[in-house]
Amino acid sequence: MSTSLNAREAAPHIGTLASGPLGTIADVDGVTVGHCTIDQGALQTGVTVIRPHRDDPFVHKVPAAVSVINGFGKSIGLVQVEELGTLETPIALTNTFGVGAMAQAQIRAAISANPQIGREWSTVNPLVFECNDGYLNDIQALAVTEQHFVDAFDAANAHVVSGSVGAGRGMSCFDLKGGIGNASRVVRVTGRDYTVGALVLANFGRLPMLTLDGAPLGRVLTERAAKQAAAASEASAKPEQGSIIMIVATDAPLDSRQLKRLSLRAAAGLARTGSVYGHGSGDLALAFSTAYSVPHDADTITLPPLVADARLDPLFRACADSVEQAIIDALWSATPVTGRDGHQRLSLHDSVPDLAQLLKLKPIH
Amino acid sequence: MSTSLNAREAAPHIGTLASGPLGTIADVDGVTVGHCTIDQGALQTGVTVIRPHRDDPFVHKVPAAVSVINGFGKSIGLVQVEELGTLETPIALTNTFGVGAMAQAQIRAAISANPQIGREWSTVNPLVFECNDGYLNDIQALAVTEQHFVDAFDAANAHVVSGSVGAGRGMSCFDLKGGIGNASRVVRVTGRDYTVGALVLANFGRLPMLTLDGAPLGRVLTERAAKQAAAASEASAKPEQGSIIMIVATDAPLDSRQLKRLSLRAAAGLARTGSVYGHGSGDLALAFSTAYSVPHDADTITLPPLVADARLDPLFRACADSVEQAIIDALWSATPVTGRDGHQRLSLHDSVPDLAQLLKLKPIH
Amino acid sequence: MSTSLNAREAAPHIGTLASGPLGTIADVDGVTVGHCTIDQGALQTGVTVIRPHRDDPFVHKVPAAVSVINGFGKSIGLVQVEELGTLETPIALTNTFGVGAMAQAQIRAAISANPQIGREWSTVNPLVFECNDGYLNDIQALAVTEQHFVDAFDAANAHVVSGSVGAGRGMSCFDLKGGIGNASRVVRVTGRDYTVGALVLANFGRLPMLTLDGAPLGRVLTERAAKQAAAASEASAKPEQGSIIMIVATDAPLDSRQLKRLSLRAAAGLARTGSVYGHGSGDLALAFSTAYSVPHDADTITLPPLVADARLDPLFRACADSVEQAIIDALWSATPVTGRDGHQRLSLHDSVPDLAQLLKLKPIH
Amino acid sequence: MSTSLNAREAAPHIGTLASGPLGTIADVDGVTVGHCTIDQGALQTGVTVIRPHRDDPFVHKVPAAVSVINGFGKSIGLVQVEELGTLETPIALTNTFGVGAMAQAQIRAAISANPQIGREWSTVNPLVFECNDGYLNDIQALAVTEQHFVDAFDAANAHVVSGSVGAGRGMSCFDLKGGIGNASRVVRVTGRDYTVGALVLANFGRLPMLTLDGAPLGRVLTERAAKQAAAASEASAKPEQGSIIMIVATDAPLDSRQLKRLSLRAAAGLARTGSVYGHGSGDLALAFSTAYSVPHDADTITLPPLVADARLDPLFRACADSVEQAIIDALWSATPVTGRDGHQRLSLHDSVPDLAQLLKLKPIH
Repeated sequence: MSTSLNAREAAPHIGTLASGPLGTIADVDGVTVGHCTIDQGALQTGVTVIRPHRDDPFVHKVPAAVSVINGFGKSIGLVQVEELGTLETPIALTNTFGVGAMAQAQIRAAISANPQIGREWSTVNPLVFECNDGYLNDIQALAVTEQHFVDAFDAANAHVVSGSVGAGRGMSCFDLKGGIGNASRVVRVTGRDYTVGALVLANFGRLPMLTLDGAPLGRVLTERAAKQAAAASEASAKPEQGSIIMIVATDAPLDSRQLKRLSLRAAAGLARTGSVYGHGSGDLALAFSTAYSVPHDADTITLPPLVADARLDPLFRACADSVEQAIIDALWSATPVTGRDGHQRLSLHDSVPDLAQLLKLKPIH
Repeated sequence: MSTSLNAREAAPHIGTLASGPLGTIADVDGVTVGHCTIDQGALQTGVTVIRPHRDDPFVHKVPAAVSVINGFGKSIGLVQVEELGTLETPIALTNTFGVGAMAQAQIRAAISANPQIGREWSTVNPLVFECNDGYLNDIQALAVTEQHFVDAFDAANAHVVSGSVGAGRGMSCFDLKGGIGNASRVVRVTGRDYTVGALVLANFGRLPMLTLDGAPLGRVLTERAAKQAAAASEASAKPEQGSIIMIVATDAPLDSRQLKRLSLRAAAGLARTGSVYGHGSGDLALAFSTAYSVPHDADTITLPPLVADARLDPLFRACADSVEQAIIDALWSATPVTGRDGHQRLSLHDSVPDLAQLLKLKPIH
Repeated sequence: MSTSLNAREAAPHIGTLASGPLGTIADVDGVTVGHCTIDQGALQTGVTVIRPHRDDPFVHKVPAAVSVINGFGKSIGLVQVEELGTLETPIALTNTFGVGAMAQAQIRAAISANPQIGREWSTVNPLVFECNDGYLNDIQALAVTEQHFVDAFDAANAHVVSGSVGAGRGMSCFDLKGGIGNASRVVRVTGRDYTVGALVLANFGRLPMLTLDGAPLGRVLTERAAKQAAAASEASAKPEQGSIIMIVATDAPLDSRQLKRLSLRAAAGLARTGSVYGHGSGDLALAFSTAYSVPHDADTITLPPLVADARLDPLFRACADSVEQAIIDALWSATPVTGRDGHQRLSLHDSVPDLAQLLKLKPIH
Repeated sequence: MSTSLNAREAAPHIGTLASGPLGTIADVDGVTVGHCTIDQGALQTGVTVIRPHRDDPFVHKVPAAVSVINGFGKSIGLVQVEELGTLETPIALTNTFGVGAMAQAQIRAAISANPQIGREWSTVNPLVFECNDGYLNDIQALAVTEQHFVDAFDAANAHVVSGSVGAGRGMSCFDLKGGIGNASRVVRVTGRDYTVGALVLANFGRLPMLTLDGAPLGRVLTERAAKQAAAASEASAKPEQGSIIMIVATDAPLDSRQLKRLSLRAAAGLARTGSVYGHGSGDLALAFSTAYSVPHDADTITLPPLVADARLDPLFRACADSVEQAIIDALWSATPVTGRDGHQRLSLHDSVPDLAQLLKLKPIH
């Protein structure tokens, strides 16, 4: 969960922008999230569903765009989002080998809600993102099924939980336990307040790269670990096979071109945690706006007045800061998980009992 | 089937380049194709699998690239092909709502061949293309299953069949029966012969647009049909909901950047049949080379001497001509199909009994 | 010039859509074009300027997008058009080595109109397209100067001339005289008429590829020429070094994402004339809308109701047909030019005295 | 200059990878750099030329690729680099309004070296990058001329100078004096050492965002400045109008697809200095390899064995670290400049006399 259970110290606040009241993607009004967690021995995986608004997204399509920062990934649905600038299903997150089941589940749910799909109407574009949780999870079991999508969808609400839950169950980050992280920022643009919220599925990075609010924590921890030779060499030798999915929501009125610009700023937040977008890491960012929707069957598209591009910088900062904060939240909220073949990931807190002391040694803050 | 049953006249030969001996994508040595056709009342659909070479494509990855001409489509696997310039599974074609099952089947097949996948090795990127066959096929039934992939894969051989088979079973093209089409061309580049082969899944276009070897056949047929008012108004009123997948193989040594250039020339061949890449048509082209492969786990990539870009024009022509010819082949080879709700598509030959006479009226050839 | 001098037969009308009253890009209200032609012995070149509307485009930016069909080209300004979805100067066309002078001229003109540029305001993005007219023109002389831009700009009006004028002066097309061509189409979309206009700078193609309204004219002419061996071998041996710039204007309300979709349909019109987007041909299409503008310094962007994507097909057809028609117009309007080293390009009409007869032999029209 | 004049403390070393011996882009063997600096009252600008190798790059083209991180920029030549994967002129850097003169100068130099250009051979693609130095420099004067290119080219050598020189003369960075910065890293990949070198033209950022080796220096300085109200409000209120050009060289054998991947990692290094790729900042990265060249006129391209993609991570880190280090070097090496209208930029050292003390307060290093 994103709030600490036992008086654990709060994570450092990234940057100078204010967080929204919840500190999650649900600070963008209308966004809800549901998890379905699979925790059965060697099966440590799950599904997370983000509903961008309360309506049927096929009928009321959501302006959206994707930035592929590193395309080592198997996500589904990006081609059509790029062409049409909208998404038309909820956003499903799961493990790499669960994308097929998620696509089928999305299709079935869309047909059920709109029996015209694939007949009088066009087909539906299921949107599914994934990371490889194969270190903890027996990913070869293809354990994720269509029902898990239904369960996650049904569970969606505005009280968004971070940590080792849903699609985040089996994920690793900086050789620690990763998973779902959340954050939000509120910025003032031309006299109005807008919210940017981020939900990440964090499954990337090797320990030596971990940078926490500018502090090279990973380097310190690796040096410590070097005294236990085996752990250190493991951590530095193997290439990264992880990924990160960054979902960015905003209530600012932006079109899909502007949302593409916004989504790319997730790369800045990601870099500040130590990532260099490693070869084997599928690093993707999706941004969507809740300020309006595009009706499925209409002659025209009516847009609200859009924020001018020259006024976007505060939103860009909010995106970068939210994503960096959400990654920290994923580490902060994670609970340890033991999975297939006895593989285990400790949480940041378990790995670094003196984390608070280390972070107090901040320099010129 | 690609050969006429009863001494039907051959399709016109597009352009001045010579065809390969088979006139199919299998003229590129090593390429094989298998179909699994579902023909059960309202279920008129199927799967087609293209194997780019005889080896395991995960271990011996195939240089490849994709051009998204119109991204109204739900294909899977393109993000990673774009990033890494290789494909690592066979190419599966099916209907729009079958992509999930195909992805799962591809994943299972890859794991079965390489149990390291998702464990010591990275995950696998299933490559699946689709068109919407919902006019003839009860697409909402999600009838395509993993077994159909296995059956199509097992059936792959170098005797490639065109027509209303495999993924082509339920497809429509120019309001006629579409489906699988094939063609090839042989060109001489810097003293060597290279082959370009194309396989298309043709499911696009409204009748009035049909252009056959430069002749506005669709216009003629539409004028005829105008005397039967209902047919004509149907044909012109509804927007296109089809798509076309164009798979282009070559034995020329090209890298992925050059293959991307090659794949885009499919758009020229497509345009010459009357398409303007309609809004609702997912028009995608994939090109791959069989001249070399990229080993899964190696320190270096060794490439043969590549054709210089300044020498690519013959290959560009071969791609455009092959694709145009393959679309004609799809129309020429199609057999009529009756599917869900009594929907029916006639073949070009059934629709135009005097086709040979019409095409003899060629102008300045 | 676009009108025939001596009762020459009109060019065939491409497709079934109606032309606008002028048959030029100026059928889109507000668009004007000016030429400055350099005709001095070995210097056969010039400048063409397209003004997208009557106002200052820096203050009232024009929604726009570019499709790079083949990027063998040296155009200037595309990066920012892609990022921001607007153009902010007139569109300048010239020869490949004139782009520097055009960029400087555009910058100076923008500063003159808006002295805040590069001081209180941001800098200006000059937009310049080019083709290589080096066969007829002594391109190494860098003869195009800033004054030529000024002269072309000052000459802009709504009576648009096609042929061997302006930037088209030294251009070749299918080994014939190319240059400036124009066309337009009017389509009805959701109860309203919209105009699409095209202006092309046609400088591409080898003779054997020329296809005129579906007829393989180039093949016929090449076979004729084969009897004069030298000419034929020249025409077929040398790779293409030309290019085509396709400027597409519309009064339909489209955003930049939709304009990018529209601009790509120029590739369909181009393909129908025989092009396969040759390696050495810089094939670029720019589309812009005159339905609204984006103010330079405003907090918000207010858009009119946009045409829904599902209603774009008539505009796509209009784009493809206009571009094909404009290329024919360039050939039709061209007058012969003799340039450097005695190089000469005949017009289509001079090359093919029996053109009318040849085209009358149309097939099944 | 990159070496401190008076025993000034060295800049902090970013990351754990070793620098090359020179600590400049010239650590990549064969790369040379020349500056031409204009320092005449209100004219504070210049030209920097990077020669990727010692030969003629038109005859021996250089494998290269560009990442457009934020396309608010007027660089020239990117379209063809993207299409063909090579550059064929030196890389020129200058101010935004100097790109036209640079393009002309590059064209003239290429013709002079190869008189076949634009005649028997194709034309040449001049490559020019720019930033807006209008705060210090009277950019409206268009003071940069072709001769300045020649002078910078002639001055190119392997002793690369950083600071307020060449194109960096008038640049600002984080409201301080910016300009040219350099850095390099050496990494071991599959048993061989490869060098990555970076040269940046740093002209981006507002003071509050400055992050130096993870420390939020800008925030500290802004808080200080807040006591002098005017300065602070100026720094935070105005949007960014700067840019950064990041040129990345390597001797690792990579093809253009891989170089594109490498170039994007510049975005990670940039982000770590505080940038979120602001709206008005043209943030572009070019990467090139010196491991081989592509001959202008050959039938085939022969490549050395390429580093496999799965082995690229050390090079990715080297790119990110080099770019971050080079930005710091630009700040570190800058000398104060006073330009048009009395505008002045202080160097980092002049602005922060206690910089060394501040940076010693590093946290958990």
